[in-house]
Amino acid sequence: MVALEKKPLHQVVIVGGGFGGLYTAKTLANANVDVTLIDKRNFHLFQPLLYQVATGTLSPADISAPLRSVFSKSKNTKVLLGEVSVIDPKAQQVILGDQIVPYDTLIVATGANHSYFGKDSWKETAPGLKTVEDAIEMRRRIFSAFEAAEQETDPVKRRAFLTFVIVGGGPTGVELAGAIAELAYKTLKEDFRNINTSEAKILLLQGGDRILPHIAPELSKVAAESLQKLGVVIHTLTRVTNIENDIVTFKQNDELTDIASKTILWAAGVQGSALGKVLAERTDVECDFSGRVIVEPDLTIKGYKNIFVIGDLANFSHQNGKPLPGVAPVAKQQGEYVGGLIQLRLHGHTLPQFHYTDVGSLAMIGQNLAVVDLGFIKLTGFLAWVFWLIIHIYFLIEFDTKLVVVFQWAWNYITRNRRSRLITGKEAFLAATPPVNNSSHSPTKEQKQPVKL
Amino acid sequence: MVALEKKPLHQVVIVGGGFGGLYTAKTLANANVDVTLIDKRNFHLFQPLLYQVATGTLSPADISAPLRSVFSKSKNTKVLLGEVSVIDPKAQQVILGDQIVPYDTLIVATGANHSYFGKDSWKETAPGLKTVEDAIEMRRRIFSAFEAAEQETDPVKRRAFLTFVIVGGGPTGVELAGAIAELAYKTLKEDFRNINTSEAKILLLQGGDRILPHIAPELSKVAAESLQKLGVVIHTLTRVTNIENDIVTFKQNDELTDIASKTILWAAGVQGSALGKVLAERTDVECDFSGRVIVEPDLTIKGYKNIFVIGDLANFSHQNGKPLPGVAPVAKQQGEYVGGLIQLRLHGHTLPQFHYTDVGSLAMIGQNLAVVDLGFIKLTGFLAWVFWLIIHIYFLIEFDTKLVVVFQWAWNYITRNRRSRLITGKEAFLAATPPVNNSSHSPTKEQKQPVKL
Repeated sequence: MVALEKKPLHQVVIVGGGFGGLYTAKTLANANVDVTLIDKRNFHLFQPLLYQVATGTLSPADISAPLRSVFSKSKNTKVLLGEVSVIDPKAQQVILGDQIVPYDTLIVATGANHSYFGKDSWKETAPGLKTVEDAIEMRRRIFSAFEAAEQETDPVKRRAFLTFVIVGGGPTGVELAGAIAELAYKTLKEDFRNINTSEAKILLLQGGDRILPHIAPELSKVAAESLQKLGVVIHTLTRVTNIENDIVTFKQNDELTDIASKTILWAAGVQGSALGKVLAERTDVECDFSGRVIVEPDLTIKGYKNIFVIGDLANFSHQNGKPLPGVAPVAKQQGEYVGGLIQLRLHGHTLPQFHYTDVGSLAMIGQNLAVVDLGFIKLTGFLAWVFWLIIHIYFLIEFDTKLVVVFQWAWNYITRNRRSRLITGKEAFLAATPPVNNSSHSPTKEQKQPVKL
Repeated sequence: MVALEKKPLHQVVIVGGGFGGLYTAKTLANANVDVTLIDKRNFHLFQPLLYQVATGTLSPADISAPLRSVFSKSKNTKVLLGEVSVIDPKAQQVILGDQIVPYDTLIVATGANHSYFGKDSWKETAPGLKTVEDAIEMRRRIFSAFEAAEQETDPVKRRAFLTFVIVGGGPTGVELAGAIAELAYKTLKEDFRNINTSEAKILLLQGGDRILPHIAPELSKVAAESLQKLGVVIHTLTRVTNIENDIVTFKQNDELTDIASKTILWAAGVQGSALGKVLAERTDVECDFSGRVIVEPDLTIKGYKNIFVIGDLANFSHQNGKPLPGVAPVAKQQGEYVGGLIQLRLHGHTLPQFHYTDVGSLAMIGQNLAVVDLGFIKLTGFLAWVFWLIIHIYFLIEFDTKLVVVFQWAWNYITRNRRSRLITGKEAFLAATPPVNNSSHSPTKEQKQPVKL
């Protein structure tokens, strides 16, 4: 008897476990292909709620799903932890560390980072919000600022500690500004003895002529009014020209203003992750000015039918000439499209070009306050807030975090408390207190090293 | 009219926001004294559940209560963030950073750290479990070990990644061993493709002749049998003689054994925190061999009626000659005693000596498995597990975390999932993978720095 040699399965390699990579893998789960999902983290992060970690409402685990757990039952799917450094399109393989992973089809979905428009030195003073570590660092800075203000006797310095500047009026900037306003003016009001947290100043700086430029102008206006009612000061048509020594300088109507602030948060600018550049160099495909890879109508790249780029890293401009926005629904739909296309191709079929179905835009401003733009219907206030909640629960439903998050929200809603407001890392609140040399409670070397929580 | 000069209130300063400090402050809340609670962290940590953070069941915020939030309504209580470096008993003041805080009555409750019995070099290889950062580091090591084993092709190295050694057979060691066994043999069983997590080895090393020496011998035996049934290998009468290069050497019956293990966890030895020593030097009070301060029957120190030492930092041997154990109920009762005594003293009264009411001992082994020793009644198995749950809920009830924790437990219980198993910090799982120099997904400097979650 001669054993028939089994033909090896089609090898699909996905780099990145964000929304794009995750939904590609989900679509291919249990399909007749081998899938390798590579990510440098062992969890998928629900990025749209990251600002709630940064402002002390949720814990990192509440908005994360362990990748192995998500694909535990998909026996054709292998999760590989590591960072891809090289893509070799000729040899059809990617390299991470000393491992070589061959592919028949490759999906690159490594997302985007913040852009500081060439001023990378601003980054240290004005951190962005892309990773769990970013969120924990923001949380540390926000809550440490109040603590430092409580101990500061110099009124000028105290005001700098109580001044929060958020650069960028997109959804993240708006949500951060709203959440910090609620913290200062509501949650923390009774907690301090030397300062009045209501004296905190929260500034939102926006380059364009209105906040939330991606939604309808009338909703933008409602959002701005709601934020202002909460106590946020909004400056539109404003460009940051310098960030240095805890002073942010911005230009508005040709006038320069210097604001002393100990907490400057960055929510502006997008830049494709570095792997896009690596890919472009090896394939001669073009990137746009933000480092996003220009993709074909079927999300492949020019000259390589077996390489897809999706999500925030992709510049897809075949729908209305403008690149699709870097939001979760786009990445999700692209992942599903690519997963479907790969399966059809195995049988010699194909799909028409990718088409994004706009599911609308929404932004949370505060408790009972949100704006929702579905095109055919526009919601504001409490109704929008409920809708925002439902949409996010719906998205989370595919992971195992849904109940905990919903419960936590409800709990925070009732108690107006922020239980996750731990100041962790960097010796509790290094930024605020003068250095202490004689350790008392934590005498060990390990505990003295900068760490984050 | 002449305004009567108001007599300043009695100043109570509490150093440390653990169980001892917290309950002192709670007892004094709204009393006719001024209270200053000093801690270097902005939250109280429910340490008995820290092992559940280390093994991926709970998030740090689930077992923490922000101190300001706890005392928000107690207008006589001020929370001060900082690290006390000097105690000056003559001038009646403590110093933190450049701040001087005067006191009429001082309570020192800064707890204890792990002792490595003079072998501090072991600490890096075998971390302990006292702080949130410790727990996150343990979590990172445990889950990274499985990830590294999945990628390792050398069988010897792979076995080292799948070998977990826990040093110390007290409650923390037992609870860690049980939780890791459940992880390896149940939770993670379906999650990997190259390794069989059931091949993991979990060793529990105990110096004495039985684990959980503080409970009745028959319960010790049940606990040991339950652990062994879960898959844990227990070595009693075993002393660790060396930890070096991922090899732990231990002596049992004069025989030396070398075990290769990438994950060695320390749950043995106790050492009073450094502030105890500072205090002892300034007051000539004695410390025991573990650095705990010897206290008088009323928890003051010799020669200073206005300085109390309580909790894990105190050696109180006036009840049966042996020092009281370093557990939460002792600290709590001592805090309440001191709070009461301070109030009585204001009216010229006093209290009989402190008396600890033993509330029993208990340890969680795994799902549906615990041992409870109440003296008059002993429980094992499911009943003990339910009792353990109720006791912990009862303790948590005084904080705002209770519902979330209970819910999370229930959820984990039903799904047998560990949703908080994030590998964070130190570039995801640095210990396991070969160094990657060409950054791909995270090109920024900030993200490349060692950070923890």
